[in-house]
Amino acid sequence: MKQAIFFLLDEYADWEGAYLASTLNQSADWEVKTASIQPTVTTIGGFTTVTDYLIDAIPQDLDLLILIGGNSWAIEDDRIKPLVASNLARGTVIGAICGAVDYLARNGFLNDYLHTGNTFYFWNDSEYDNVKSFIEEQAVRDRNLITANGTATLEFTELVLKAVNFSSEEEIEKSVTMHKLGYYQFCEKYGNPYLS
Amino acid sequence: MKQAIFFLLDEYADWEGAYLASTLNQSADWEVKTASIQPTVTTIGGFTTVTDYLIDAIPQDLDLLILIGGNSWAIEDDRIKPLVASNLARGTVIGAICGAVDYLARNGFLNDYLHTGNTFYFWNDSEYDNVKSFIEEQAVRDRNLITANGTATLEFTELVLKAVNFSSEEEIEKSVTMHKLGYYQFCEKYGNPYLS
Repeated sequence: MKQAIFFLLDEYADWEGAYLASTLNQSADWEVKTASIQPTVTTIGGFTTVTDYLIDAIPQDLDLLILIGGNSWAIEDDRIKPLVASNLARGTVIGAICGAVDYLARNGFLNDYLHTGNTFYFWNDSEYDNVKSFIEEQAVRDRNLITANGTATLEFTELVLKAVNFSSEEEIEKSVTMHKLGYYQFCEKYGNPYLS
Repeated sequence: MKQAIFFLLDEYADWEGAYLASTLNQSADWEVKTASIQPTVTTIGGFTTVTDYLIDAIPQDLDLLILIGGNSWAIEDDRIKPLVASNLARGTVIGAICGAVDYLARNGFLNDYLHTGNTFYFWNDSEYDNVKSFIEEQAVRDRNLITANGTATLEFTELVLKAVNFSSEEEIEKSVTMHKLGYYQFCEKYGNPYLS
């Protein structure tokens, strides 16, 4: 069983991990667990999540680390940088979206990766020094790092699923397209999936 | 302060309420609370949510009741039908999506409303008797009831926000379109929202 850790801070964005977590966790091959620096976190939408792991207890051998955006990533915490650094170094696929990309940028993690994010204007006066590698696309993958802006939930989902070889590229694209277009436009394009 | 209750069952769909809850709860006029028949519920994606209210403690004077879909709506529970019936009768705006629409259909709540849903084929041998009013659209509003299929998160969000007069129709459509198109296509169509 492969394990995906969704790392959450307080006031995390409800929508950014929703399609990805549900897709992974419905597979017999994957298990989704949540982690944070505290036992419970809230969403921007007002939901309260009890996390499975405190940060110090996150397993070393995880298969996917997802950093969900939100309102708390202007954080100073001695434990988050080593978590990111060790997993980047060992080749764990890492996905970061929205505010979590800001965190990676400001802490110098994007200086050797092609990437995107909400906007690099927020990254002045930080360890970020790689504007030439900022790509104006919804989501970007470079090796084991996927970055995305906060409106790119489905593009982020697609690139992460492809990076972990979740299923065939065609299957991944179809499942994302179903949500992107909606059921009726999907049926016009691909036929009714329930009748095939 | 207006209160929106998101009613959740175990294995509820992570994505279906994500945009709606976050939009509502960021407004100074609205507060989002969660409710269920049990103190904690999980998402399809493997997140654990601590709910704010048990069903018996849901306030009588709520302003919006959202029934989120998921894998547990083939449920028999004496308390859910009165919750729906009393709120429908007093004119509370109710939004139901995916599996929650199946529940409404099978318990006869759609027999006097135009509606949609995943598919009416699942509603045989139930109290449902209104196929003529099933509309093949992503989301449908009739008076105080909004229904939607499980790929219609954003269309559902739009119709619910309009039903509760959350903001102007134009503002609602723009915020939904931002997520539907993504940031870059949105900017092409409307200009950069951060520069206006």
